[in-house]
Amino acid sequence: MTRYRHRVAFFETDAMGVVHHSNYVRHLELVRVQWLDEHDQPYRVYAEQGLHYATTHIEIDYRKSTGFDDVIEIAAWIDWVRGASMRINYELTCDGACVATASTVHAMVDRNGRARRIPRARVENLRRLALRPGPKAR
Amino acid sequence: MTRYRHRVAFFETDAMGVVHHSNYVRHLELVRVQWLDEHDQPYRVYAEQGLHYATTHIEIDYRKSTGFDDVIEIAAWIDWVRGASMRINYELTCDGACVATASTVHAMVDRNGRARRIPRARVENLRRLALRPGPKAR
Amino acid sequence: MTRYRHRVAFFETDAMGVVHHSNYVRHLELVRVQWLDEHDQPYRVYAEQGLHYATTHIEIDYRKSTGFDDVIEIAAWIDWVRGASMRINYELTCDGACVATASTVHAMVDRNGRARRIPRARVENLRRLALRPGPKAR
Amino acid sequence: MTRYRHRVAFFETDAMGVVHHSNYVRHLELVRVQWLDEHDQPYRVYAEQGLHYATTHIEIDYRKSTGFDDVIEIAAWIDWVRGASMRINYELTCDGACVATASTVHAMVDRNGRARRIPRARVENLRRLALRPGPKAR
Repeated sequence: MTRYRHRVAFFETDAMGVVHHSNYVRHLELVRVQWLDEHDQPYRVYAEQGLHYATTHIEIDYRKSTGFDDVIEIAAWIDWVRGASMRINYELTCDGACVATASTVHAMVDRNGRARRIPRARVENLRRLALRPGPKAR
Repeated sequence: MTRYRHRVAFFETDAMGVVHHSNYVRHLELVRVQWLDEHDQPYRVYAEQGLHYATTHIEIDYRKSTGFDDVIEIAAWIDWVRGASMRINYELTCDGACVATASTVHAMVDRNGRARRIPRARVENLRRLALRPGPKAR
Repeated sequence: MTRYRHRVAFFETDAMGVVHHSNYVRHLELVRVQWLDEHDQPYRVYAEQGLHYATTHIEIDYRKSTGFDDVIEIAAWIDWVRGASMRINYELTCDGACVATASTVHAMVDRNGRARRIPRARVENLRRLALRPGPKAR
Repeated sequence: MTRYRHRVAFFETDAMGVVHHSNYVRHLELVRVQWLDEHDQPYRVYAEQGLHYATTHIEIDYRKSTGFDDVIEIAAWIDWVRGASMRINYELTCDGACVATASTVHAMVDRNGRARRIPRARVENLRRLALRPGPKAR
């Protein structure tokens, strides 16, 4: 599990005085990059190999608002991995209170956006970290 | 149902050459504002009354990528409304192909972020438009 | 001269209740794309040719704030063009009042970011539109 | 002088494969907040007092592009301060090379956007740090 700390920027707030909900999607990406650094291989290595984890699904439940200069702590872990996709789960807290939970699914693609399998060494590594087997292919 | 056309800006693309997935969350907001214009009351009227539809849930399924200068057509409709919240569904197409589906749930709050009921006239109007009754309160 | 109308989105506002100043940089790009459509060739044609107008300078003077749902009208025109760069000027108004003035300078680059000359037909076209000769090369 | 390190996120890149120029405006804000932390008072204290440094001018010269996962180091210092405004200068480097220089001017406003003087204790502190006297009021 990775723990990422994000200090809220002023440009992330909106006229309700809180962080605009669209920004959380970007926070999830920041923590995914760190999660790969710590548990798999840096995302830039995938990118140099011409591989990307395209986002195919995102869901976020917002529980509490956050504001300028708050520090959001984001925990991320891998839920499941299959041959060509994986799911990451997230919990976002601020001052000890859960502010949001989220999950994202990613499918491996090449530079041209065509579906690819996750390289064998990587999928084996990810499987060791996953909480549960992936769903059967649809 | 509202149909909103969004021409993709260059600043919405990423280094994979496609629209970054976080931008779709913003597209959904653009179409919600137009949906309220056409079917309820302008969002700025809510805001002037000190009321906001805070986003409490978002989910997006991404089917196909889109790129610079593509025109994304977004259809939006209300799924359900309850006394203090509502759900909007979306289908995003580009050149006739579905590129994403999404839904968002919104809870009414006041200027201080406290939960409020949707004004009676508004909820009655929204109920006439909703596809189905809302889920029972949890 | 191009006139572009931009309706301010909620996600563009910040906790001061106004449009965050960083968003104007994106508005300028929106109007540039339309300006090229109307006066030169669509930016996507440049991109298909492997050419981009990289931004090398930007300056904005902010006069008045704008808020959610305001309509900002942006006028844009070419100031000068040289063999490999050009400058565009902008005036942003809202309800008839000037809210900002801006200018941007762009240098032609290829897909790898290397400096390139603007294609001859394009530079001749742009020269006919420019207000004044470009500065001497430094 | 403050030195701020920013690791480039994937969502900051564009279809040219580099950081979109609009993001630098946001980087400048990140470093300003840290500069105030280190040399004046936290921006959230100003905000709690109902005061904001509205941005009235921005200019950026882009020298070299940066890409995903690059670390941009941003140096910031105060150029001048007057009774109600100040100017901050910036130099952005990556791997030791200057990638951009910038400056921003900020005017103090209250919650309603009305011009205000910078509180005396703050302006005295800022004056000690400024490189040069401010320009005469226009």
